[in-house]
Amino acid sequence: MEKREIQIRLAEGRDAAEIARLLHDFNVEYSEPTPGVGQLTETIGRLLEGDEITVLLAGEGPDGLALLRFRPGIWSTGLEAYLQELYVVPSLRGQGIGRSLLTEAIELSRERGADGIDLNTGETDTAARGLYESMGFTNREGAPDGPLMLFYEREI
Amino acid sequence: MEKREIQIRLAEGRDAAEIARLLHDFNVEYSEPTPGVGQLTETIGRLLEGDEITVLLAGEGPDGLALLRFRPGIWSTGLEAYLQELYVVPSLRGQGIGRSLLTEAIELSRERGADGIDLNTGETDTAARGLYESMGFTNREGAPDGPLMLFYEREI
Repeated sequence: MEKREIQIRLAEGRDAAEIARLLHDFNVEYSEPTPGVGQLTETIGRLLEGDEITVLLAGEGPDGLALLRFRPGIWSTGLEAYLQELYVVPSLRGQGIGRSLLTEAIELSRERGADGIDLNTGETDTAARGLYESMGFTNREGAPDGPLMLFYEREI
Repeated sequence: MEKREIQIRLAEGRDAAEIARLLHDFNVEYSEPTPGVGQLTETIGRLLEGDEITVLLAGEGPDGLALLRFRPGIWSTGLEAYLQELYVVPSLRGQGIGRSLLTEAIELSRERGADGIDLNTGETDTAARGLYESMGFTNREGAPDGPLMLFYEREI
């Protein structure tokens, strides 16, 4: 396959339905609950409008997304960035789209004034873990062979 | 030791210096960088004022804190809660202060309209992990014996 340049752009309000479609497909693929494309479109539109989320889109499809949150930091005067979702449509994986999205997400976070970025992923998602680790993320405390950092959640 | 009831209260702006002291001590204990009590007091005051953080304080000392973030959810119309910090002063551990803080943090999150709460902790922090797991948190995907959920971070 010919190598093409991967275009990444910042989503706007009019992209809400496409973002919703990608997020819906993401959760269906991983057997996670989804409220459906209609509800997601409304939510994503509202959060984009209120600057509560920042979304990067890859390619014309769009073919993938990175969804970020920014919050004022506690430990510094900068922002803390949280990469909440990173997704590439299944048929287009392995072409560097995820890496391009992550690279741009880090660059955008830096431009916005963040001094750290965090995320969570599953132990068995080796493709994602490989990508994160190759891009300078660690899930070890203190040292490369330190204890694992674990993500916990509960419904309330 | 006589069993005393643990009082938990919502912090206000005038608590910024005490919160800063606890956060500073927290990071010193775990050999993490800290900007110092002065800078933390200013930051915490600003974030409390702007409703960017919600802090619960235990006891008169105060003897511990829970620091929460709320953000509008993607997957539902409710809020997502993030328990960013949970700390009890070393000499008062093992008396249920952490459990009381966590119980109130969950209750407050529910009252605010959150339908989920997440956090991260270290693999070797068995006291914290035991507390979280006893309170219904999981770090497994899908099932009690599912893959671990991992937390990653990098500086930027």
